[in-house]
This record gives sequence, C-alpha cells and structure tokens, in this order.
Amino acid sequence: MDYRFLGTFESPHDVKKLNNEELTVLCAEMRDKILDTVSENGGHLASNLGAVELTVALHRCFESPRDTIVFDVGHQCYPHKLLTGRFDDFSTLRKENGVSGFMKPDESEHDAFITGHSSTSVSSAFGTCIANELLKKDGYAVAVIGDGAMTGGMVYEAFNNVRKEDANLIVVLNDNKMSISKNRGALSRHLSTIRTRKKYHKFKSGVERFLKKIPLIGRFLYSAVFNLKLMFKNALYNSNIFESLGFYYMGPVDGHDIEKLCEIFELSKELDRPVLIHTKTVKGKGYKPAEENAGDFHGVSGFDRETGELPKSKMNFSACFGKKLCELAKKDDKICAITAAMTSGTGLLEFSERFEDRFFDVGIAEEHAVTFAAGLARSGLKPVFAVYSTFLQRGYDQLIHDAAIAGLPLTLCVDRAGLVGDDGETHQGIFDVSFLSSVPGVTVYSPSDFKELEIMLENRLKEPKGVATIRYPRGGEPLISENKMQFDGFSTYSSGKTCIVTYGTLVSEAISAKDKLRSEGIDVAVIKLEQIFPLPEGFIDTLKNFDNVFFFEEGILNGGIAEKTGFRLITGGFEGKYFATAITNFVKQASVSSQREKYGLDSDSMYQKVKEVL
Amino acid sequence: MDYRFLGTFESPHDVKKLNNEELTVLCAEMRDKILDTVSENGGHLASNLGAVELTVALHRCFESPRDTIVFDVGHQCYPHKLLTGRFDDFSTLRKENGVSGFMKPDESEHDAFITGHSSTSVSSAFGTCIANELLKKDGYAVAVIGDGAMTGGMVYEAFNNVRKEDANLIVVLNDNKMSISKNRGALSRHLSTIRTRKKYHKFKSGVERFLKKIPLIGRFLYSAVFNLKLMFKNALYNSNIFESLGFYYMGPVDGHDIEKLCEIFELSKELDRPVLIHTKTVKGKGYKPAEENAGDFHGVSGFDRETGELPKSKMNFSACFGKKLCELAKKDDKICAITAAMTSGTGLLEFSERFEDRFFDVGIAEEHAVTFAAGLARSGLKPVFAVYSTFLQRGYDQLIHDAAIAGLPLTLCVDRAGLVGDDGETHQGIFDVSFLSSVPGVTVYSPSDFKELEIMLENRLKEPKGVATIRYPRGGEPLISENKMQFDGFSTYSSGKTCIVTYGTLVSEAISAKDKLRSEGIDVAVIKLEQIFPLPEGFIDTLKNFDNVFFFEEGILNGGIAEKTGFRLITGGFEGKYFATAITNFVKQASVSSQREKYGLDSDSMYQKVKEVL
Repeated sequence: MDYRFLGTFESPHDVKKLNNEELTVLCAEMRDKILDTVSENGGHLASNLGAVELTVALHRCFESPRDTIVFDVGHQCYPHKLLTGRFDDFSTLRKENGVSGFMKPDESEHDAFITGHSSTSVSSAFGTCIANELLKKDGYAVAVIGDGAMTGGMVYEAFNNVRKEDANLIVVLNDNKMSISKNRGALSRHLSTIRTRKKYHKFKSGVERFLKKIPLIGRFLYSAVFNLKLMFKNALYNSNIFESLGFYYMGPVDGHDIEKLCEIFELSKELDRPVLIHTKTVKGKGYKPAEENAGDFHGVSGFDRETGELPKSKMNFSACFGKKLCELAKKDDKICAITAAMTSGTGLLEFSERFEDRFFDVGIAEEHAVTFAAGLARSGLKPVFAVYSTFLQRGYDQLIHDAAIAGLPLTLCVDRAGLVGDDGETHQGIFDVSFLSSVPGVTVYSPSDFKELEIMLENRLKEPKGVATIRYPRGGEPLISENKMQFDGFSTYSSGKTCIVTYGTLVSEAISAKDKLRSEGIDVAVIKLEQIFPLPEGFIDTLKNFDNVFFFEEGILNGGIAEKTGFRLITGGFEGKYFATAITNFVKQASVSSQREKYGLDSDSMYQKVKEVL
Repeated sequence: MDYRFLGTFESPHDVKKLNNEELTVLCAEMRDKILDTVSENGGHLASNLGAVELTVALHRCFESPRDTIVFDVGHQCYPHKLLTGRFDDFSTLRKENGVSGFMKPDESEHDAFITGHSSTSVSSAFGTCIANELLKKDGYAVAVIGDGAMTGGMVYEAFNNVRKEDANLIVVLNDNKMSISKNRGALSRHLSTIRTRKKYHKFKSGVERFLKKIPLIGRFLYSAVFNLKLMFKNALYNSNIFESLGFYYMGPVDGHDIEKLCEIFELSKELDRPVLIHTKTVKGKGYKPAEENAGDFHGVSGFDRETGELPKSKMNFSACFGKKLCELAKKDDKICAITAAMTSGTGLLEFSERFEDRFFDVGIAEEHAVTFAAGLARSGLKPVFAVYSTFLQRGYDQLIHDAAIAGLPLTLCVDRAGLVGDDGETHQGIFDVSFLSSVPGVTVYSPSDFKELEIMLENRLKEPKGVATIRYPRGGEPLISENKMQFDGFSTYSSGKTCIVTYGTLVSEAISAKDKLRSEGIDVAVIKLEQIFPLPEGFIDTLKNFDNVFFFEEGILNGGIAEKTGFRLITGGFEGKYFATAITNFVKQASVSSQREKYGLDSDSMYQKVKEVL
C-alpha cells in the first residue's frame, strides 16, 4: 500500500497541517502499517491500534520534543514512532539492530525515557516538569498511561507528590478497560462509576434550573441554592480519586475523536493546574479480530492479517507450568496461584478458570503480590506467584522483608528467565539469579526441560519450606540429546578431565558442544546444575576432579552462579583452571540464538572456547 | 514505678476486663514503661506514645491471635508488645537477644508478620483475610497503618485488590499528621479535606430539614429533595479516596478515646464490607517534650526523661554528607536533593531549608524517588537521592529500568550501609553492594572516613555520568590510624606477602589488626578499596603479588565484593591463597561491634584469622 501522508513528515509537527479528512486517511495508514508490521514481526497490537487517534491528537496539540510525551510501558508507542522518524525503519521492529518495541531515547529525541516496565510515566513526566520549572524551560510534560498501568503503586506515589503549581503536568489516562489480563479491582470499578456519574452532573443542572424558577420564596431559595452549589462543588469536586489526589479531572472523552481530544488538550494547557484527562479507547480499534479478542491480540508473535488467525502456540515452559500446577491443585486445595496481570503469559489461564477462588490476579503490582502471597503462606496455604523474571525485580525488597526473613513457604515461578529476544534491554531475565541468590534462605531451581520443571514443582509443593524459586525461560524445550536428572541438585554427563558446567536450557548447547568435541577425540564432561543455589552438596568437590572447568551462564556475570562457583573453587583449594562466560551488560533486542552467539553461550562458542584452551 | 495492671495480664484479652478508670491507669502505666525504656535504650517514641489507647481498644475489641493485627512499619507496636507477653523483657528492647523494636513472629504468636519496612500491612492483612476465607477460619484481619505509610504505593496496590466481599478486612488509619519527616503531598491535603468536609455533612442535613418545611410546593419539592438525597448519597459516598477504592469509610474518630474507638471497631465488625477507620492521634501523647517536638522524638537513641533533653548528636556520616552537599549546592544550582521521608535521618535538614526549591521529600516512596530522580537527571539536573541502604531495596527495578539502561547521571547516597545494630534483621544495610553491582554501568564508592566521603561527593557531582552510588554507614568516623586516599580506586598501606583487603569503616579494624600482627613480627599489607565496583584498574594485578589474600566484607557474601574478587583472582591466574569473611545470613539486633565480632569482622577476628593461616 502506498501512503499519502505516512512517511512524508519531516517532524511530528506536520500532523498539525492536516485537515479532518486528511487525518482520517493518516490514521488508516498508520493502522495499516502497524498491522502489516506486527503481523509479520510480532509485537503489541491491540493497544497500539487503540492509540492511533490519541497519538495524532497529542502531536497536533503538543510540540515534541519541547513538550515531553511519555508513553507508559510503551505498549502504545508504535503510532508515536511512526510520526517521529521511525516510519522508514519500521519494518525492522523488534529485529536485531532494528526499531525497538518500546520507547527508546537512543532512537529519537522524541522518546524521552525508556519505558518497558509499567507505571513509571507519571514519575518520569513529573521529574521533567519539575526540571523545566527549575531550569526555567518551557514545555509540558505529558504522561500517557493505560488503565492497567494505573494498578501499579508507583503511580500513586507520583500523584501524591504533585502540587497545584505543577501546572505543566498533564496525565492522559488511556482507559481501554483492559490491561494485559482482564482488569480487576477497585480502580477498574471506580472508572466505571465515574462514567456513570455523568448522569448526576446532568441531573444537578436540571434541579438547579428547576429551583430557580419557583416563585414566592425566591430570595430564600436563592440563598439555599447558592449554598447548595457551593456544597455541590465541594462534594462533587473531590468526587473521584484523581481529584482527591490534587488533579483537575476532565473526561471521559472519546479517545478516537481527534477534534474532541484536541479541544480538551488545548484546554488542559490553559489551566494553571495539573490535569488528568480521562480518554476512552477501544483496544484493537479498526481491526475486527483484535477488537473482538483484544486479550489474544495484546502481544503476538505474528499472525495472518487476512484471517486474523493466530499461530497455534507450541508447548512451552509457561504452558507446562500451568498444566502441572492445575494437576497438583486438583489434589491439594492449599495451592493458590497469583499473577500480576499476566494470567495468560504465565500459563495460568486454565488455573484461573478451574480454581477461581484460589486464583488471584493482583494487577501490575509485583510488590504487593509478594507480600500478599507471604500473607497467604503464613496462614498455611501454598501460594505460587508466577512472574516474569524482569518484573520480579520490583519485588526484591518484599521478598527479603516479608517472605525470606520469616522463612515463609512462598514459591516463585520465574518465567521468561534468561534471554528473551525481541523485547530488548528492559525485558531480559538476566538479573534474577543474582538478586535471588543474595537473599539468605532462598533456593533457586532451574529446570532444563519440561519434565524437570514438573518434577521440581511437584517436589516443591509437597511440603514447602522457606522461599523457593523455579526459573524457566520463554519458549519451548531445547533438543537435549541425553537428559537425566539425579535429584541431588546436579547431574553429570560423560567424563574427562575437562568439564562444561551450566544450567537451564543451555545444557542442550553444552551437550552439543561436548558431542562435537568428542567426535574430535576430546573428552569433556557436562555438569548440569538443577538446584543452582545454594550450590548443591558435592558440586564443588566434584569440580575439583577436573583440570579445566568451563562455566557458561545465561545471566548477568556479577552475582551469578559462575562467579559464586569460581569463588568457592578458589577458597576451596581448587588447583585447576577456571573459565566463565556470562552476560556483562544490557542485552539488546535480537533473536535468542543471536544473543547467545553474541555472548558466547551457544554450542559453537562453547566448542571454540574449550578448543582454544586445550 | 509499681504497676497495678501492666505485667499482670495472662493474655491481651485481659484488657477487656478493665473498666474506664482502670483503663486510664493502664494507659498511664504503658506510657511510663515506654518512656522509661526508650529513654534508656533508644527506639521509636512519639509514634508509640500516640498509639497507646488505640492499641488497648484494638485488644478490647479483637481476639488476637485469632484476629490478626498487623502494625505497619512497627513504629507503633510497643504498646502492643506490652500487652502481649513482652512486658517482662521489655527492658531488653533493641538489645542483643532482647525484645525487637519491630513486629516479630519469633517473639510472639501475636506478631503475625515482620514489619520494619513501610506500607506492607494492608497486603499482609489482606493475604490473611483471603486465607481465612479459603480455609474457612474465623478471624478479622486488621491493618494498622500511619498516614506516613499511606504514601507508599504498595498500599494502593493492595486497596485495588480488595473486593466488597472481603468483609473481614479492617484498615485502621492512624492519622497523626506526621510521618517521619513533615508529611507533604496530596494525600496529606486530602486527609485535611476529609476533616473539613464534616461541615458540609452538617450543612446538608440543615438544608434538607429546611426544604421539607417549605409549604405549598411540598410534593414537588419532596421529590426534588428525594432525588437530591440520592444524588448526595452518590456524590458524597464516593467522596473520599478510600471509598473510591471500595472501602466503607468511618471517621475521623479521636484515637485517644477508647470508648469511641471500641464503638467504631464493633460497628466495623458487623458491616459486611471491608472498612477503613480513620483515627486521629497525637504523636508523643502524654509526654510534653515529644508532643511539642514529635519529629525529634520519632526515633531516638536515649534521652533525659526528666528534662526531655536529647543527647547532642555527634558528627556522623549523614551530617557530613548533608553539610558537604549544601556547600556544593551553593556553588552549583543544578544539584537537587531527594529523600523518601528521611530528611533528618539522611542529614538533609539544612539542605531542605536552604535550597527549598531543589529539595524533594517524596514520601515513603523509594520506587517513585528513583524514577523521579531519573526524570530530573535527564533534563540536565544533578539529582542526589539520599536513602538508607535497606530501603533502596525497593528501588532496584527502577534503578535498572529507569536510570541504568539509559545511563542517566543519577547519584545515590546510600546511608546506613553495612551493619546498623539495634534495628535488627529488617534494617541491615548488607544487600546494597550485591544488588547494586549486579546492574551494568553502576559505580559504587565506599568512603572509609568523612574526608573521603566529601571528596567522592565533590568529584562525582562535577560532571556526573551514569549511575553512581556512594555508600556510608550509620554513625561516626572510626579511628583510623593512618588514612590516605590515592584517588585511583584503592590504596595500599604497608607491605608484606600477605594482605588484608576491605573497604568502608572496616579499614580501621584492618589497620588495627595489621599493627598488632606487625608488633609480633608479621608483615601484613592493608588494601583499602575506595571504588568498590567495578573493581578498580590494577587492583587484581596488585593482589597477585601476595601469597595470601584475606578479604573482609561488612555485607552479604553472595554477590559481594569478596566473592567478585575471588572470582577474578581464579580466572586471572592467581596462584596464592584466598580467604573471605563476610555475612552469610540475616543479622539479628545487637550493637554493631558485637555484630562485627559475631561475623569475624572486627580487628581481633582479623588478627586471629591471619594468624591461623600463617
């Protein structure tokens, strides 16, 4: 499809030049481009389709980059990218060296902040707003935040800081009534109430008009009405949560009506107060399959644009976890599952339907999730919090403070552990091993295949003691040629004076490397860690039998298991040579196999590394 | 003072047997005991004095431990401890092997959860409430939370989860209008508004009565009023933030009036909805110096009970930091300071007064603080977030996601780093080195005395690049016999084939040990790390010159610098012997010197360790 407008813009300001009909064309073009690209490359679809008009309206009314627009989480930033110089490269979305799926300052001066985790936009925008005040710079700071992200506590911390005089702060609530999972909770109900209450506003005006017309007791009634008005103002004024928190509230406004949006944005600029604008949008807008099934089209890995058919999901670790947990929960009614707005992503959909009363979607609220789970654990339940590695970073303090010190039997199932591919720096699951193993009393397991995950989960949930975490990667099972699990924390394959140590799905790479080396007459053992921390009994002693130990770790080097193993070898009197390969910086988007190659973690690199040394 | 009631109780239920006069005596006794103990041992005073009647009322109306009462942060749990079996040992408060200053399940079945960090109580109580529902157990779950703790985002995450049917959840807001620092922000203003709005309720009734009396247009007006009432109900019903979030709101009620409190508690038990009870208390109640100066009497390290005189605070690292920052900020108007409700504790009082527009107390909101600071940094300011090590645990994800990936020039001044003594497990600053050094691009400095802190801060703030942290301990300067700083990351004292490596104030212990060894003819060098991570250039090579390297670290072993050094030695081909001493579990309350001794980190232990090996 040839575009009339899209791709012709020198800057986002060019959208200001279009008339209404032209805008309609532009929006259609943007939807087309997004559909084309995401159906091919995968990415976030429904939320981006829903934010097309909203984004156009923002760029019509604000002057980026003088005005700072922060899209929370970045699930709704594709339209923004298309208008701010990323159209030409948009087909590289989420590819190696391509356009990022999230806001990224490296890419454009129009992306002020990195946003990949939720609920940060108000804090960032507020920081910008204050900085502008102090540096006497012009410019509005606009945070665009979905109703899902509003379930994260950080937003309230930021709201609480905003003062009446921070007039250049504008928060745009993009209310599409659906965060990643189904939106539950008080806030969601409250947003519905706000919508309903419009009736009362109308009613109020009616009553007032009526009273004023009554004869006879005019003066008397006038005064009563006058006072009533004051009262109304005060009662209604603080009638919603945003106004309680000091914002001037406007809305709800149709988020697909550019004219109305612009009206309200212009008004918001003139008010000398911080403003919250409540817009209502439809997820998946303009693409029927996504409108009808927004949940499935939130994050996709490519689909058939014509039919709207999504690829059948292959069996993966998340699904394996979910299935096994259902099986266990059926026999043990103490097992509960918790997710932070990731029911589907963590494989808990079936559980949520079969065991509704033991299933808790707490919203995008990992901090609360950990402490809430600790509360369940203390009362004798067996809570399992399934969470992406990168998001668990938010629960670090709660893990220490609310679970580990008391030794409560909390089980964390850490999904998307290790490299995650296309999502890039913000989403890699490379820190959990380091921060989890810093906490006394926490046990960390790492299955290398589905069977091990099942066994670990079952064993763990029999009589859970203390905090334990089972971490597994995104995606499916690798091709391991000779699996075995010895149930004593680690397993050894083959023999030799040299060994490769690793864990998780890297074991498959290690076994390939070993096989290749053996075919060249070099005998190498592979040691697979199953309990990766604390290091299993006998593990260090076993390593002492080797002359050369090579550790490969799909995680950050600092604080990782390779480092810990090296430390324990040197303090344990190991006399051989020790080599470690792990991740040393933030990992950019690319396929997992390319990322592994880059960091020397694929079987070829392992093979090379061993060959070099021997 | 001999007590008539205090200390005679078999269980907290015994408070139910007392009449009003007896309760007055009991409360006086409790205040006396708290004053006696805290003036001697130090601890939290003002908040505990303010919670005496509230606690008595809670134990009169609820049945602990069947009903679970969670005191948020634990700054207000001494009265609870006195009524639940800790009276006899109360003089050991905050001493080694003594009664903890926080809620502690080990101590008593009446302490359901550990609480030392803020804003966790609603999550814990909600977890308990849900568990009771699932396990079909009786019992209310009561979260007692101060207005300060309400500035933490976790509370809203928890509120958002509560459903109408969670009728056994009761949140008691202990509103004493002052968190640790002066309470700022929208919530604080909102609480004032709630109080004011009582007038409108009264006014509303007046107007209604008046309208009903008007003759002639009775029927007409009646209907209008009827509708008005509906409208009022709906408008006022959701008129405060707690009701927006689904709670039934009751209050404000005088938190020193046991009778009224009990009335409202009993009522809350009968409602079949989650309830928030707003109580107003006076910090320091019953002790004039604390009532007049609640801020100074929040956390104290002993004082003169008769005169209310607080010991003059000695020069300490926090004060040194605050003074230096003021000096730098005077010359550089880009420097900003941020605190999460710890203005005084972090030494920022002077800064907050002298540079009001560049000072931000964000409330107990470390997550937001980091991202907000990143927002300031991105716009060209030089934000310095001063925060206790243990509380920075809450900002780990934001540090990675909002600051480090983008390499924003954020400066963290990490106070209370290392062992903190009396506060116990929840407050030790032993994890920051591990979790900070896991984040790519973060530099960690550790001054061993005031002068080094000043130099590091000044150097850092000249042209800040990337995230840097300067960590320093609670308290004053140690007696270092021969300090020097070489400005290249580490310094070496003396020589020999053996060296002791350490950082921070442990350097003083190491130098003592070295001197003692030298007096016995054993030559030992001391290497002091100044930039502790990344390990400074030349550091590992320097260590290779030694036959024996002993690392002593006042921090958690896993992920710490001793581990990293060992790893780099073994992969770097070091052929000598390496020994590391660090902390391996949660550290219980005791004096810092006793804690150091226990973990082998004092000069005697260092001396012994070296002697053993040589």
